[in-house]
Amino acid sequence: MMKAWTLAARPEGLPQSEHFALVEQPLPELDEGQVRVVNRWLSVDPYMRGRMNDVKSYVPPFQLGEPMQGGAIGEVVESRADAIPVGTLVSHMAGWRDEAVLPAQHVQPLPELGVDPQAFLGQFGMPGMTAYYGLLQIAEAKAGDTVFVSAAAGAVGSTVVQIAKAKGMTVIGSAGGAEKCAWVRELGADAVIDYKAGRSVVEALGEVAPEGIDVYFDNVGGDHLDAALAHARLHARFAICGMIDVYNDAKPTSLKYLARLIGNRVRIQGFIIADFKDHSGFYRDMATMLREGTLKREETVFEGLERTPEAFLALFSGGNKGKMLVRL
Amino acid sequence: MMKAWTLAARPEGLPQSEHFALVEQPLPELDEGQVRVVNRWLSVDPYMRGRMNDVKSYVPPFQLGEPMQGGAIGEVVESRADAIPVGTLVSHMAGWRDEAVLPAQHVQPLPELGVDPQAFLGQFGMPGMTAYYGLLQIAEAKAGDTVFVSAAAGAVGSTVVQIAKAKGMTVIGSAGGAEKCAWVRELGADAVIDYKAGRSVVEALGEVAPEGIDVYFDNVGGDHLDAALAHARLHARFAICGMIDVYNDAKPTSLKYLARLIGNRVRIQGFIIADFKDHSGFYRDMATMLREGTLKREETVFEGLERTPEAFLALFSGGNKGKMLVRL
Repeated sequence: MMKAWTLAARPEGLPQSEHFALVEQPLPELDEGQVRVVNRWLSVDPYMRGRMNDVKSYVPPFQLGEPMQGGAIGEVVESRADAIPVGTLVSHMAGWRDEAVLPAQHVQPLPELGVDPQAFLGQFGMPGMTAYYGLLQIAEAKAGDTVFVSAAAGAVGSTVVQIAKAKGMTVIGSAGGAEKCAWVRELGADAVIDYKAGRSVVEALGEVAPEGIDVYFDNVGGDHLDAALAHARLHARFAICGMIDVYNDAKPTSLKYLARLIGNRVRIQGFIIADFKDHSGFYRDMATMLREGTLKREETVFEGLERTPEAFLALFSGGNKGKMLVRL
Repeated sequence: MMKAWTLAARPEGLPQSEHFALVEQPLPELDEGQVRVVNRWLSVDPYMRGRMNDVKSYVPPFQLGEPMQGGAIGEVVESRADAIPVGTLVSHMAGWRDEAVLPAQHVQPLPELGVDPQAFLGQFGMPGMTAYYGLLQIAEAKAGDTVFVSAAAGAVGSTVVQIAKAKGMTVIGSAGGAEKCAWVRELGADAVIDYKAGRSVVEALGEVAPEGIDVYFDNVGGDHLDAALAHARLHARFAICGMIDVYNDAKPTSLKYLARLIGNRVRIQGFIIADFKDHSGFYRDMATMLREGTLKREETVFEGLERTPEAFLALFSGGNKGKMLVRL
C-alpha cells in the first residue's frame, strides 16, 4: 500500500491542515518499462500553493482527492526497465507520498557529482537551477554588478547569493530575523536587510546600495519589488521567479516606484525553470563551486511523511533556512 | 526681445496656470556658428510634467525662472553657420518661446519627406519614433501578434495603431469617450475599449481579446497595465514609455495581476526614445506608409504662444486627439 497526501479541499488564503488528507492506496503491478520507487526525500516549495487553486497556470492544478505531486528523491526497489536497475537513486515528481510506480522516462537517475542525494531537491535541483538561470541568463548578471535578492535565506535566494559572490558580484540579501540575516552574511552577502526589523525595505536598500542596484532577483514581490524599482540603476534587469507575497492572498501589489522603470530602462522578466532543458553547464559550474568550497548548503528537515503539510505551511511563515525538506 | 514661458513655481499634483509665467528677455547677438530661429510650432508632451519636479531623472529638471524646453519647429532668420542658411526649417528643443539663438549643432534641418513641418513634432518626430521603436524593437511585435495600446487616440498611441496595422498585427486600442474611440477605429484598430464607459479595463479587454495579447504598449500605467497583465499570453512583451496615470500624482499603482508575469514569462521593458540614434530606417518606413496611405495624421492645435500652458494641461484631461500642438 502507498501512503499519500491528497488535497482534501481547495484553500482560500493560507492553507490549513484540514485541506490535506493522508490516504492509503494499493499500488499496481509493474508494467513493462515501469519502476517502483521508495521515496527517501520529499520537496515542498512555495509554487505548490498555486497548484491548489483550480485555475489554469503553468502547472496544472492538483486534483481533489488525488495524491499531490512534487519533487522527490527515491530508490528504485523493483524494475521492469533495463535502463533503471534496482538500487538506482532517482529524482522524480511523484512526491507527497512514500512510494510510487512510474514509467522509467519519468525518473532521472541522479548525476554522479559527489553530493548528498537530497541536494538534487535543492542547490542541484530545481531551486538551484532557478537561482542559476535566473541570475545569469534571465537577469544577465555579470561581475561587478550589484545584485539584490529577496528571500535570501531560502532555497533559491541562498543559492543566488553564493553564485553571485562566486562570479564577482556585490550582493545584498534580504531575510527575516537576525539569525537568518547572520546566515546570509555567512554565505558571503556584502550587506543584509532584515525586513522584519521595522524599517521599510526601500529605505534600508537605499542605505546599503547608495549607488543603486543592477540586478534584482525576486522571490517575494510586494515591498521588495517596489524597493528594487526605487533603487534600480540605468538598464537594471529584474528576474521574477516568485511572489510569495501574493500566493495565499488576492491582495493587489502596490507599487509607488513603478514609473521609474521608464527613465532607467528597467527590464522585468518573469520566468519558469521548466523552460531550461540542458543542464550540463549548470551541473559543471555548480560542481566546480562545490569543489572550490564557495558553495554552502543548508537544509531544514521535517521527519516523516506525516509532517509534509506542516513543512509546506512553514514556508509561508519563514520557517526554513535553506531548502525545506521532508525525510522519510 | 524673446517671449518665453518659464516655470514660476514647482507644482505638486496637476499644475495650475500660476505655475507658469510668460517673460520677455533680450536675445544675444549671434556668435560664430550660431543661428537665430523663429518658432512656428511648439510641442507639448506629457513627459514634460516630470521635468517640473526637482528630481534627478532621464531629463534634467526645468530651472525655476528659466525658459522651459521642448520640441519646436522654427525657421532660421539669421545665421552665422554655413551649414544652416537663412530660410531653413529646423527642429530643435528650444520650445515654450517664440524665438531662440542656438548653436548650429542644436538644430536639425527637417528631412525632405513631403510632409507638413509640424509632422516632425508628431508622427515624424519624437512621438512617432516612440511608437515605432517601442512597438517594433522594444516589444518586438511582429505580424500576427495581438497588440494592446493605451491612450490610442494620443500622439504616440495613434501612431502605434497605424504602424501595427500596416505590419499585419491585430490591434486593440483604448481611449476615453465615444468620439476618440470612433477615431481609433477609423485608424484601423480591430477593437476599441472606451475606458470612460464605466466597465473595468480588465473586463473589457478580456472580452475583445479572449485569446489574450502578445504585446502591450503602455502610455498610461495603472488599470491598463493591470489589465494587460491579466490577459498576457505566453512570452508577452510590454513596452513602457509612459505612465500618465502617475505623472501628477504620487499615488501607488495597484496591480492585482502582477504575479501572472511569472507563469506567462512576460517581459516588461521601460524605454526612452533618446536611446535610439539612427533614424534612417524609421523615416524610410514611415514615408512608405504615408505614400501607401496607411498613415493618417490628426492634430489638436492651440493658437498662440500665450496658450501653451493651456495646451499642456489639456493633455492630462484627455483634451487632444492625435498630436497636441501650439501654432505661433
